[in-house]
Amino acid sequence: MLSNNQIKHIRFLQQLKFRREFNQFVAEGDTLVLDMLASAYKVDMIVATDDWLQSNALLLNNYKATIISVKENDLQRISALKTPNQVVGVFNMPEITLDIENIKSQLTIALDDIKDPGNLGTIIRIADWFGIKNIVCSPETVDVYNSKVVQATMGSIARVNIFYLDLVDFLKSMQTSIKIYGTLLNGESVYTKTLDEKAIIVIGNESRGISNAILPYISEKLLIPSYPIGDSNSKAESLNASVATAIICSEFRRKTL
Amino acid sequence: MLSNNQIKHIRFLQQLKFRREFNQFVAEGDTLVLDMLASAYKVDMIVATDDWLQSNALLLNNYKATIISVKENDLQRISALKTPNQVVGVFNMPEITLDIENIKSQLTIALDDIKDPGNLGTIIRIADWFGIKNIVCSPETVDVYNSKVVQATMGSIARVNIFYLDLVDFLKSMQTSIKIYGTLLNGESVYTKTLDEKAIIVIGNESRGISNAILPYISEKLLIPSYPIGDSNSKAESLNASVATAIICSEFRRKTL
Repeated sequence: MLSNNQIKHIRFLQQLKFRREFNQFVAEGDTLVLDMLASAYKVDMIVATDDWLQSNALLLNNYKATIISVKENDLQRISALKTPNQVVGVFNMPEITLDIENIKSQLTIALDDIKDPGNLGTIIRIADWFGIKNIVCSPETVDVYNSKVVQATMGSIARVNIFYLDLVDFLKSMQTSIKIYGTLLNGESVYTKTLDEKAIIVIGNESRGISNAILPYISEKLLIPSYPIGDSNSKAESLNASVATAIICSEFRRKTL
Repeated sequence: MLSNNQIKHIRFLQQLKFRREFNQFVAEGDTLVLDMLASAYKVDMIVATDDWLQSNALLLNNYKATIISVKENDLQRISALKTPNQVVGVFNMPEITLDIENIKSQLTIALDDIKDPGNLGTIIRIADWFGIKNIVCSPETVDVYNSKVVQATMGSIARVNIFYLDLVDFLKSMQTSIKIYGTLLNGESVYTKTLDEKAIIVIGNESRGISNAILPYISEKLLIPSYPIGDSNSKAESLNASVATAIICSEFRRKTL
């Protein structure tokens, strides 16, 4: 049975300050929790229905975690979802450090103040699909352990490393070693521009794009052309940040096929 | 001043059955309402703050609409948004009919039960960006006039025609005239496959993909390759439906540049 203290603890993890204090976060639902268990993340607590615990009894033997069986109704008391789904897991945040040499040898995404949890979750899922191992976020980017982000990643959070760093410092330290791409209104078509296999792709904030402090570090300016080209009439003003990320990552990968 | 009946009417429009009964829907916020006013949609009512009405007084002279000035607080009583933004507009649904000959001459998206309002809104925005004029939705696709969809289109709803039709009937009537593309696990890479300028792109449901009833009509099977190719280890299972739409539409357009 869940104690009141446990209920309180799990609910506290819906708030950023407590996630930081305890270095823990929550992931929910059958698929996501199984993805998390299979990852490098350490599990601290599993709260689940009897059915789920029975189905996964063998697997759970491999983990040192507090395991608590609850009725479906009780999941509601700790879940951040409208419709809780069998299991709630409490995981420890990983201690990972950014390996600059590693970043220089591959494709990395840098997020300049992405604010929408759904966008961040979707971008992590895109990174996972396109084999991008690292995402560097500005400190103002939404917290990756926000439950909406965690759920939107559909398990990809377990396979992509996320770092929060001062983006200016980071790009400054990288600019002589690797090309830094960003989409700008005066950029060159992503379809025709040469794209390096080793690079940093900067994605700007949903409303204001790439910030002024970051602009000087963008060595390669990209543009996703709208269609038909040259027809500025009655056209969408912009693409959603995660949609733009998807199209750009797809272009980087198609060019190395 | 807003009457109680007007408040009730606008609130009713948050429900599908009343939208269908009155053939009306709501769009909110400065940018979106201005986009809607500039479109073929007919406005029925504008409820806005004094400031907004004054800034747009000249423009509003061009429209026959009930115009009501309210205090910021009163917007809250009719808004579907957490933070209302200056203006709420009630618009009439357009009477548009699908022109089959027209569809045969261009690129069209067909949605097979897209359920998430954010996905549908984002897909409409993508269509607008890539100059796709028509989207055909299965009857089970979420209602385009749902306020979450309308807001997520960021104004693109004003520039893209949306039809709800039996998708099997529609594809059956098109299959001899035009290629019908869909993403499937056994498809050919979207990067290498020939893509026709005139085509229908079918996007499947978020959980189950393209439905069995639709599969026989997919003449061209596509795949968005994940990276690295051939590494089936630790990889995302799928891309979000709107992200997949973006990558595919981008590929169709890049090939005709």
